[in-house]
Amino acid sequence: MLGLMQDHPLLISSLIEFAGRHHHEAEIVSRRVEGDIHRYTYADAARRSRRVANALDRLGLAFSDRVATLAWNGYRHLELYFGVAGSGRVVHTINPRLLPEQIAWIANHAEDQVLCFDMTFLPIIKGIWTHCSTVKHWIALCDADKLPADTGIAGLRSYEAWIADAPDSSDWPQFDERSAAALCYTSGTTGNPKGALYSHRSTLLHAFAGALPDALGVSARDAILPVVPMFHVNAWGLPYGAAMTGAKLVFPGAALDGKSVYELMESERVTMAAGVPTVWLGLLNHMAQHGLKFSTMRRTVIGGSACPPAMIKSFRDDYDVTVVHAWGMTEMSPLGTVCTLKLHQTELPGEQQLAIMGKQGRAVFGVEMKIVDPDGKELPWDGRHSGDLHVKGPWIIGSYFKGEGGDPLVDGWFPTGDVANIDADGFMQITDRSKDVIKSGGEWIGSIDLENIAMAHPGVAMAACIAARHPRWDERPLLVVMKKPGATLTREELLAFYDGKIAKWWTPDDVVFVDAIPLGATGKMLKNKLREQFKDYQLPTV
Amino acid sequence: MLGLMQDHPLLISSLIEFAGRHHHEAEIVSRRVEGDIHRYTYADAARRSRRVANALDRLGLAFSDRVATLAWNGYRHLELYFGVAGSGRVVHTINPRLLPEQIAWIANHAEDQVLCFDMTFLPIIKGIWTHCSTVKHWIALCDADKLPADTGIAGLRSYEAWIADAPDSSDWPQFDERSAAALCYTSGTTGNPKGALYSHRSTLLHAFAGALPDALGVSARDAILPVVPMFHVNAWGLPYGAAMTGAKLVFPGAALDGKSVYELMESERVTMAAGVPTVWLGLLNHMAQHGLKFSTMRRTVIGGSACPPAMIKSFRDDYDVTVVHAWGMTEMSPLGTVCTLKLHQTELPGEQQLAIMGKQGRAVFGVEMKIVDPDGKELPWDGRHSGDLHVKGPWIIGSYFKGEGGDPLVDGWFPTGDVANIDADGFMQITDRSKDVIKSGGEWIGSIDLENIAMAHPGVAMAACIAARHPRWDERPLLVVMKKPGATLTREELLAFYDGKIAKWWTPDDVVFVDAIPLGATGKMLKNKLREQFKDYQLPTV
Repeated sequence: MLGLMQDHPLLISSLIEFAGRHHHEAEIVSRRVEGDIHRYTYADAARRSRRVANALDRLGLAFSDRVATLAWNGYRHLELYFGVAGSGRVVHTINPRLLPEQIAWIANHAEDQVLCFDMTFLPIIKGIWTHCSTVKHWIALCDADKLPADTGIAGLRSYEAWIADAPDSSDWPQFDERSAAALCYTSGTTGNPKGALYSHRSTLLHAFAGALPDALGVSARDAILPVVPMFHVNAWGLPYGAAMTGAKLVFPGAALDGKSVYELMESERVTMAAGVPTVWLGLLNHMAQHGLKFSTMRRTVIGGSACPPAMIKSFRDDYDVTVVHAWGMTEMSPLGTVCTLKLHQTELPGEQQLAIMGKQGRAVFGVEMKIVDPDGKELPWDGRHSGDLHVKGPWIIGSYFKGEGGDPLVDGWFPTGDVANIDADGFMQITDRSKDVIKSGGEWIGSIDLENIAMAHPGVAMAACIAARHPRWDERPLLVVMKKPGATLTREELLAFYDGKIAKWWTPDDVVFVDAIPLGATGKMLKNKLREQFKDYQLPTV
Repeated sequence: MLGLMQDHPLLISSLIEFAGRHHHEAEIVSRRVEGDIHRYTYADAARRSRRVANALDRLGLAFSDRVATLAWNGYRHLELYFGVAGSGRVVHTINPRLLPEQIAWIANHAEDQVLCFDMTFLPIIKGIWTHCSTVKHWIALCDADKLPADTGIAGLRSYEAWIADAPDSSDWPQFDERSAAALCYTSGTTGNPKGALYSHRSTLLHAFAGALPDALGVSARDAILPVVPMFHVNAWGLPYGAAMTGAKLVFPGAALDGKSVYELMESERVTMAAGVPTVWLGLLNHMAQHGLKFSTMRRTVIGGSACPPAMIKSFRDDYDVTVVHAWGMTEMSPLGTVCTLKLHQTELPGEQQLAIMGKQGRAVFGVEMKIVDPDGKELPWDGRHSGDLHVKGPWIIGSYFKGEGGDPLVDGWFPTGDVANIDADGFMQITDRSKDVIKSGGEWIGSIDLENIAMAHPGVAMAACIAARHPRWDERPLLVVMKKPGATLTREELLAFYDGKIAKWWTPDDVVFVDAIPLGATGKMLKNKLREQFKDYQLPTV
């Protein structure tokens, strides 16, 4: 027997319609590529998203056709999120930090029909457009009068001209909530990128879970600055969660330096931000240099890679901002765990709370997780046993786009490629990527702990710990360090810094100082490149 | 093209499994009918819910068979919520405050197979059990040794004996998320009660929406006291929302007097409570009499009927507790609107905030609403136009159980029977039940405003405003008042109290003092009974 509730599919169009009706006055503020500040409301965003939908109809795009974006965080990108998916097409966000040939490869693989790009990326498009065989329409995200006349790109038009005379009043189509809504490729460090194809259903369930008080805690009393790019797993779902709750949105555009981000936070009275640690490093450096404080900022969600404990402490002690550690993956929409305290932890001493907050956190409802040994046997939740982290849930992939790589699941669980422990309270901590683990004499050494300790040293700007070959132990940790400008720091000082912080035998065998550590398109350290670079490195034998 | 996310149905069993795994240590505390305090954890609740599921299998109950409860808020009732619905049956909560013949009528109409009851209600069951033709199994919610030997009820057994040897380790069945999960009858004041049949899908979506920061804001840092009964629209969904987030649950059992509730709040460090205004009246009276304050209570959700502004103010000013006004219906699972401020309202003066907080609030995502005139034409959101309130959404009924009353929808919308206005910010305010509106000379007078003003008078315990016949104006307001014990209050004083608070012509024409105002099974004033009682009342002609 079925229940007798009304039958409404969970559709992305309902988010923007709800926001446009119930939060019509709430603001969306964007720093544009042009440098100026643009502001409008959810009512405007809803109207213009409907124009996008109608403009796509006029182009003759079919249901599920892909529309690509190569764009910063801003209001036009937001309209594409809702207009493309809401009208039944698939919004395909491409990471502009990829190499041009990778961008072309992805656009061809996705069979994108339309590609919308910020003017920042015109040089990239000029270089690749003839190689994108499926793209029929090129849209520059700018005013009609800002479109250069001589781009050479056939049929290029401006976004504003494109949507200007499309109607804004039609009803959104209703369809199966499991329909494809958004496509995002992993920035795999090996092999070709693989696509995660989100559905309307998965996106809405993820938005609900992500907005909960113990997750990102999104409300109509928030002004949210997503520094995390909209091309990076849908800015962790914040555009959807903000529309669901009527939160004010503040988009930073291309200006992600500490000064620009700080000024936007203050002028727009931002209460909450989200981004990767490297961005917050720039922000904190800027604030420390100029003796600045926050007026309204209360919490920042940090994910993408682990946040160094020193940064969590600095945010709390120096700026009265709570760091909310979050963990997820492109394959997970991305939210898996969020680190917010439980009732019985709220009265622990500050240092113990900090130790908890350094973990990746506990599962949000909808995500199930387990850690397993190499035989697939589930390991206990005691905070000591580390194993491969597997997850499942309605916003976690079942397969990749076009079935690439076959069935990625093991007994219905998605193996994340992370190595983690889970404590008795359900707080998960990543100890490593499984491919980054250092296998020393049959025991595992987690590289992330070693990196976090190095990063806590005042002279260190960035540190990577990789396995180097060792004649006796097979592998031993080698620390690769980028110093802060002007810092004087020796190998011996840094190794001594590990004393008492970690088991003696985990201490790196050696330190090399480098000018730069290679970063991937999402700001993560490319440790496979370092491993390649140091594959013949001779460790000092003790 | 469908998205490529994992396919997991939204099932109620996943809530208790999640809580049992990720919040296994979080407490569930119950004041039992026996008077003692029982405490255990979500891990225990999950295990015992599985026992319930297996015990139902042993009884041979089929998928979708109904299992009724006649019970207070407590841990065994919670286990039935999860065990019955989780195993694919339908948990049917019956309001024990109904007349015994109504209870029997409902049990027969629902075709309940099992009926579980608290020992408080043994006298009711003794009186009706032979009239409940479909009930094959009678379960008393007590220990095996507390079961009286001589009840005369054939086959009666204790809950504890029933589940004792049922296994606790099986996997929950997986099935269509639209399957029926819970059944709740409206306590209609006219005609037979009608059943709202909730699905697993509607229950989980409602739990997500209800737990959002702008709704009830449920988190693992909360200790929640649902005073609202679990037989009253599933305690507004709080048991589901608590399991979803790992919030501590504190169940008051049968002891709903101010002293008992206060003591439980303090001893269990309750942070949030939910209930109807009449319960809070008792609590506030008790606290005022004894000069008490709260240690941990921060907010209380008030619904069921409108909360008098004076109570909102007292909670805020005297006890530092935020009243969160909520509105809904049995037909709505029940959540429709919640009154939490928006960003631009957070800096308004306290009096203006109070005025907003007196409204029923703004729609949670998932609920769409509109007000219409008698011709069905949508009215503007200006805070002035009042009209019939219509709603739609995935946790609002499409039809009643067994199709009673035909199609309840109008163009896909459910007419709530409430008359309301909606302001420019989307805040809805009920001005009346459509059947309670007073039609004076062709204009509508809302009875609720008039009642609220009377209730703000220190001498008034309860006030109802009804239409009385008037030779010239057709109807005019008559105020029926129950004084506070010992209060001296005259008709003239009370009518003068309206001066300046409301349009002159809205002032009631007369006041009658009564010893008691009749209340329905959910604590609402039965104004139809008053109308019947005063149908020949002669208003003074001016």
